[in-house]
Amino acid sequence: MLSASKIKLIRSLSLKKFRKQYGLFIAEGDKTVKELPASDLEITEILALPQWIENNTIPATIPITPISPKELQRISALSTPNQAVAMVKIPDHDFKKVEPAKNLVLILDNIQDPGNLGTIIRTADWFGIMDVICSPETADIYNPKVIQATMGSFARVKVYYNDPRSVLQRLPQGTPVLGATLQGKSIHKTNLPSRGILITGNESKGISKELYPFITDEIFIPGKSGNKGADSLNAAVATGIILSAIIANRG
Amino acid sequence: MLSASKIKLIRSLSLKKFRKQYGLFIAEGDKTVKELPASDLEITEILALPQWIENNTIPATIPITPISPKELQRISALSTPNQAVAMVKIPDHDFKKVEPAKNLVLILDNIQDPGNLGTIIRTADWFGIMDVICSPETADIYNPKVIQATMGSFARVKVYYNDPRSVLQRLPQGTPVLGATLQGKSIHKTNLPSRGILITGNESKGISKELYPFITDEIFIPGKSGNKGADSLNAAVATGIILSAIIANRG
Repeated sequence: MLSASKIKLIRSLSLKKFRKQYGLFIAEGDKTVKELPASDLEITEILALPQWIENNTIPATIPITPISPKELQRISALSTPNQAVAMVKIPDHDFKKVEPAKNLVLILDNIQDPGNLGTIIRTADWFGIMDVICSPETADIYNPKVIQATMGSFARVKVYYNDPRSVLQRLPQGTPVLGATLQGKSIHKTNLPSRGILITGNESKGISKELYPFITDEIFIPGKSGNKGADSLNAAVATGIILSAIIANRG
Repeated sequence: MLSASKIKLIRSLSLKKFRKQYGLFIAEGDKTVKELPASDLEITEILALPQWIENNTIPATIPITPISPKELQRISALSTPNQAVAMVKIPDHDFKKVEPAKNLVLILDNIQDPGNLGTIIRTADWFGIMDVICSPETADIYNPKVIQATMGSFARVKVYYNDPRSVLQRLPQGTPVLGATLQGKSIHKTNLPSRGILITGNESKGISKELYPFITDEIFIPGKSGNKGADSLNAAVATGIILSAIIANRG
């Protein structure tokens, strides 16, 4: 049986304040928890239905606690809990290993919506982006809603919170910095680099003024000809389209 | 002042049952309501803060009711209400005017998440797709969350609820039907047609078995080489990437 204090601890992790205090976050769902032991993340405990424990082989070093469906309901952040919950240490990725001179790195400039952030991490993972730098105002990747929306990609993509300006100021000379703007060149008519930085701007305000001077390649996603369509694209959709065009460019 | 029965009516429109009964839906927010009179939709009433009414010129044929911030809060489906709410007639688009032999038409096969549906409509609008056919199990476009996520695109894109099979069975011979599958050809190495049908499948199950036989062109979005990335892309992101590749193909 779960102690009241354990339940309280787990539930508290839906708030950033307590995630920071304990250095932990929650990842849940059959598939996500099943895949976690193969990742670099450190699992401090798995809590799961007895049936799930029976059907899955989890390394002996990870403590497992069987729980009842009722207990699962109490600790889960999902409206429909799914068999297992893992408590995971918030990783401390080494920022010095990010190499925009060699790989494509994503900068998220104030992405507010947890679903958008999660979908962007998932999309980055699909396209093999390993590093995502979030501005401090960006939603927290360890928010249960974000973790859920990444569909497991939080375990592969490294996410850093840093001031984008300090990152951009220190870039090696000649590193391309892509940013989507309304005056940019068509992504289909530009030689898109497969290394450097891609900046994704805020959902309603776009890329912030302070970051504009760092953009070396303004790009644009052509839509309908004429101007009677939507004003803009969703931030995750736009990021996916640009990453796909970069892959297409690579041939 | 708003009557209790008017408040009750408006609030009831967050449920599909009552939208169907009254043939009405709610669209809200400064920008959305401002743009609505220019669309083909029929507005039955606008309820807005006095300041909003003062700053906007609304055609005299549309009844306007000034409301207090407190009343706005009571009728709004948003957590942060934004100045104006419009009651709009659910349109009855003529399905016979959909011409996949001439234009690209989107079929949504059981898209469950309101945010995803809204984002897909917005993306379709950006790329000039005028017609979206939703399977009956797809989320309701007139759900306030969907309307919000379309960012105004619900007023331009025509959405129909129909059995996709009956649509696909009646296609003129030679109409291309695109569907993303894991065995498909790379979207960057295929001659993508700019007319016909693009099927977007369910968030977790993909395109349903019954629709598979209708696909004439199986396509695939190349991601990271190797197979250590995400299993799949978000439905809206995938739709955006394919539509963008179609535009690129057109040149």
